[in-house]
Amino acid sequence: MIYLDYYSTSPIEDEVCEAMYPYLKERFFNPLSKNKMGAMIKEEIEKARSKVAKLINASDDEIIFTSSGTESNNAVIKGLSFAYEKRGKHIITSKSEHHSVLNPMRSLERMGFYVTFLSPDKHGEIKPSSVESAIRDDTMLVSLSFGSVDVGTINNIKEIAKILKKKDILFHTDAVAAVGNMHIDVKDLGVDSLSFSSHIFGGPKGVGGFYLRDGLRFMPLIYGGPQEFGKRAGTENVPGIIGTGVAAELAMLNLDKRTEKRNKLASEIKKIFSFDGIELVGKDPERLPGHLSFIIDKVKSSDMISYLESYDIYVSSGSPCVSYALKASPVLMSMGYTFEQASSIITLSTGHKTTEEEVNLFLEIFERGIKKLRG
Amino acid sequence: MIYLDYYSTSPIEDEVCEAMYPYLKERFFNPLSKNKMGAMIKEEIEKARSKVAKLINASDDEIIFTSSGTESNNAVIKGLSFAYEKRGKHIITSKSEHHSVLNPMRSLERMGFYVTFLSPDKHGEIKPSSVESAIRDDTMLVSLSFGSVDVGTINNIKEIAKILKKKDILFHTDAVAAVGNMHIDVKDLGVDSLSFSSHIFGGPKGVGGFYLRDGLRFMPLIYGGPQEFGKRAGTENVPGIIGTGVAAELAMLNLDKRTEKRNKLASEIKKIFSFDGIELVGKDPERLPGHLSFIIDKVKSSDMISYLESYDIYVSSGSPCVSYALKASPVLMSMGYTFEQASSIITLSTGHKTTEEEVNLFLEIFERGIKKLRG
Repeated sequence: MIYLDYYSTSPIEDEVCEAMYPYLKERFFNPLSKNKMGAMIKEEIEKARSKVAKLINASDDEIIFTSSGTESNNAVIKGLSFAYEKRGKHIITSKSEHHSVLNPMRSLERMGFYVTFLSPDKHGEIKPSSVESAIRDDTMLVSLSFGSVDVGTINNIKEIAKILKKKDILFHTDAVAAVGNMHIDVKDLGVDSLSFSSHIFGGPKGVGGFYLRDGLRFMPLIYGGPQEFGKRAGTENVPGIIGTGVAAELAMLNLDKRTEKRNKLASEIKKIFSFDGIELVGKDPERLPGHLSFIIDKVKSSDMISYLESYDIYVSSGSPCVSYALKASPVLMSMGYTFEQASSIITLSTGHKTTEEEVNLFLEIFERGIKKLRG
Repeated sequence: MIYLDYYSTSPIEDEVCEAMYPYLKERFFNPLSKNKMGAMIKEEIEKARSKVAKLINASDDEIIFTSSGTESNNAVIKGLSFAYEKRGKHIITSKSEHHSVLNPMRSLERMGFYVTFLSPDKHGEIKPSSVESAIRDDTMLVSLSFGSVDVGTINNIKEIAKILKKKDILFHTDAVAAVGNMHIDVKDLGVDSLSFSSHIFGGPKGVGGFYLRDGLRFMPLIYGGPQEFGKRAGTENVPGIIGTGVAAELAMLNLDKRTEKRNKLASEIKKIFSFDGIELVGKDPERLPGHLSFIIDKVKSSDMISYLESYDIYVSSGSPCVSYALKASPVLMSMGYTFEQASSIITLSTGHKTTEEEVNLFLEIFERGIKKLRG
C-alpha cells in the first residue's frame, strides 16, 4: 500500500498504540473517582496535556481536550461568540474554511450573528488586507484556517493577528492540518484560540482539542461535570488523551527531520508538472509539509482516485468531511476555478513514513493513469 | 483489587479490546475517504451501530454516536429544544438529574427557555403524577433519568411516556446507567430519545451515543461533515465505535446471567443493614442491577472510601462527575436528606466480574471500618 493522504488521517505511531493500551485495559478507572487510582489516571492526563501544551508553546491550562478537530472548531466559535456577543455580533471567516467552521457560522447567523465570508485569492490565501477591509465596528471574532487541507495554502496568521489585536478583536485559527506537522507557537502567532486534531499527527481518532488563551471568557459547548477546567464536560477519553500526549511528544522531537523528508519527497512528485495539462493549485512553496494539490486537465478526480486505488495507492480530492458527498471541490470553486476544474483536483501528501520507492512507483503509475484516463 | 464501582466506570471486556486494536492500528483510514479502505471502515462502523440498535430495539439509523453520555445529554436536550421551540419553551426535568442534564438546562434558561426542576420523592423517584402536574400548555420537552447512578432508583419511564404521548410532549431519558445493564426497549418504553455511554457497559471511554426516534427534527450540537446522518459531525472515533459494538453484543448476550449474578452478590452485601445505623437509600428492590446505596450514621463518605481504598477496595459516593468537587450528595439533598446524611452516602455496585470471595472480604473489612471510624 502506498498511502499519500496524510491530511485526511495519518497512520498511528506504534509508540502511541503501546502507550494507550494499558489505559484502555487495566487502567480503566474514572479520572474523577476520588481514590488513588482515579488520581493516578488524572495525573497521566495532565502529563499528556503538558506535552500538547509544549508542542504549541501554550500553558498547560490553556489546552482543552475534545473529541475531534470538528468539535474544537464548534466549541471555540460558539463559546467565544456567546461569551463576547456584547462586544458585537459580527464575525469574519472565509469561504474556503472546513465545514466544521462554515456550518457553526451558519448556525450563528440563524441566531442573530452577522458573518462575513471572505473569498480567498486565486492561490487560496486570505490576505491580511482583505481581513482588515472587512472589519466593522461590531466585529468581535475572526476565524481563519492556518493551512488548507484542500489546497495546502498557509495563511499569514501572525500578520492578521497583529491587525486584530490593535482593534481588540478575538482571533481563532483552525490549525488542524498544521499542529504536529509544522512549528506552531501560539504566543508568537498572537492568536486567542487554535484548534488541533490528534489523528492528523500520528495520534488516535476520537481526540482533538483547542488552545484558549488564559484569561478569556468562554461558554462551553458541552456542559456537565468539572472536566477540562469546566470548559468541556464528559468522562475523558483516557487512552485517547494518553496517546495524543505521546504523539505530540514524537511530533515535537522529530518535526524538522520529518518535514525535510516529506518536502523532499513531495518535490520528487512535482515531476508530474512536466506532464501535459497538470496545474499546481495553491501557493508554493508556502504550503503544508508534504502537501501537493493539482488539477489534471480532462481527468475527473474520482477516476484518478479509483485508478490509483486499483494499484493500492491512496490520494484524495480534499478534506474527506467536505469532499465525501460533493463532485467538485467547494474550496477550488471559492478560489475562482470552474466546476470542471474543481472536479479534477487531486490532493495528496507524503508522510514521514513515505519512502522514495513509493514515490517512484506512484510517479510511474500516475503517468500511466493519465494516458489511460485521457483515452 | 476489589472493584465495586461499576456505575462510575466499568472494566473493559477483553473481547472489546481485541476488536478495537486493528482499527487503532493498521485500519487507520478515514471512514469518509472515497476508496475501498474508507468504505470498509464505514461498513464496520455501521455494523457496530446495528449492534447497539439491537441492544435497545431501535432501527440502525436511530442511533447516533457521540463522545460520551454527557455529550449525548447535551446534544439531545439542546437539539430537540431548538428544533421544537415553536411548540413551546417549557421543559420539565428533575433536581436529581446528572449535571450533564442539569447544566444544559440552566444554559437553556439563560437563552429564554423555562425549566421546571421536579423534586424526587424520599426514595429518589420522580412519580408520573408529579410529571403530570407540572405540564403546562407550553411544555415541549421532558428529560428524566432512567435510573440514578447515585441512589439506584429506577423511574417509571413507560408510564411517564404514556402521559406525555397523549399531550404530544417530547420525552428524553438519560439511560447512561441502564443501557447494557438492563433490558431496554425504546419502542416499548415509548421514549423519543435516550442517551447511553459505552464505558458503563464494558466498552471504551470516549464513546457514547443517543437514540433519536425516526422522523424527529433535530439541531446538531456539533456541525461540520456528513457523519452520523448529519446529526453529529467530526471524524469518527473508529476503534471506540467498533469496541462499543462488541460491548453491546456481549451485554445483550449475557444480560440475564450477569444481572442474576450481580443482584445475588448485592443481596449478600445487604447483610450490612443488620449493622447499627446503616440505612438503605433509594427504592428497593426496583433499582439498577447490583446497585446499593446507603447512609452510614456518624461516618463520612470520604473517610469510608479512604478506609476501604487502603485495602484496595473501591466504592464511591455517587456519580464521579457530580461528587468530585462536592462534600455532600446533591441528589440526596434533593431527596430531603440533611447535609450530614448526604455527606455519609456510600454508593457501590457489584459487576459481572465480582466474585463471592470479594464480597465476603468487603463485608469483613467494611464492618471493621465502621467500628474504627466511629471510634
